[in-house]
Amino acid sequence: MIIDIITPILERRSVRKFAERPVEREKILTCLHAAQLAPSAENVQPWRFIVIDDPAVRDAFSKQVFSGIYSATRWAAKAPVLIALAADRNIIAHGVAAALQKIPYYMIDIGICGEHIVLQAQHMGLGSCWIGWFNARKADTFFRLPAKMRICELIALGYPEKSHAPRNKKLKNGGNMIQFNTWT
Amino acid sequence: MIIDIITPILERRSVRKFAERPVEREKILTCLHAAQLAPSAENVQPWRFIVIDDPAVRDAFSKQVFSGIYSATRWAAKAPVLIALAADRNIIAHGVAAALQKIPYYMIDIGICGEHIVLQAQHMGLGSCWIGWFNARKADTFFRLPAKMRICELIALGYPEKSHAPRNKKLKNGGNMIQFNTWT
Repeated sequence: MIIDIITPILERRSVRKFAERPVEREKILTCLHAAQLAPSAENVQPWRFIVIDDPAVRDAFSKQVFSGIYSATRWAAKAPVLIALAADRNIIAHGVAAALQKIPYYMIDIGICGEHIVLQAQHMGLGSCWIGWFNARKADTFFRLPAKMRICELIALGYPEKSHAPRNKKLKNGGNMIQFNTWT
Repeated sequence: MIIDIITPILERRSVRKFAERPVEREKILTCLHAAQLAPSAENVQPWRFIVIDDPAVRDAFSKQVFSGIYSATRWAAKAPVLIALAADRNIIAHGVAAALQKIPYYMIDIGICGEHIVLQAQHMGLGSCWIGWFNARKADTFFRLPAKMRICELIALGYPEKSHAPRNKKLKNGGNMIQFNTWT
């Protein structure tokens, strides 16, 4: 029996159509404060955030990163805010452990902190969508990032064009995702 | 000005000492339901969950994965519950995109869905801690996982030994994590 799921988790859905209303900087900063409270491997906090909320910058950025094979993500060029989630990969603890484990911890950390943004946004009436399909190389170049930094994901943010009922999410794999004390 | 952060985000901290009280399966399943409501790249839901709540299984597993260079994580052998977050890497959409982007999307997805577990647990009075430092190869072997599956992270779960005040989190990098419309 499922009990009492946190409201923003229950009600979140990916939003790709936004009202033209701009997003208050106060709300953006609140989302990023929530992100910075996230745990990270060895608490290194590898995340860096570039907020794009200037329409001219957004348009120039979008032209670079949502074109060619990435044009399926063109809808994001109309998002009032794009947050680029960058990681500082120049962190020794991560490097040694990641090489041994073959796990790029900063990717996990970006997932964790980004979801804090998404849930906090939902709580404040904002819609959001994770974006993994964009020209990541051109995104780095656009902001002239140092070599140690890398934009891993984007999150689109804005007031939803219309209100959505929480969708009835279909589970993949026949819903067969969980086993106790064994895997068969 | 920061406004109204979601309570479980605000109050979460990593818990490594747990009461001996077992965790109700109902609560574990609620955490995993929350996890399954998470977004994932192309909605492929690559996550699989192995819940270890049988003390005998936990002890045998811990002996394998928290020894040798991984013994810094020995505290987790006493956690009432360990959830192994595994990913099915045999998903074509992920494979093609990941190769082009050099971003292993399933790692981001594991971060996102795992944090739903952590926040939902916090909401229900449970403490948790992400674990990235364990013998991942032996973990896979312990459960005889098929080659396509891989345990990426563990999450320890249980009732905290004592109540914690939310910690006053110190931000790294002089708190200089955010820029608007540029990176300098």
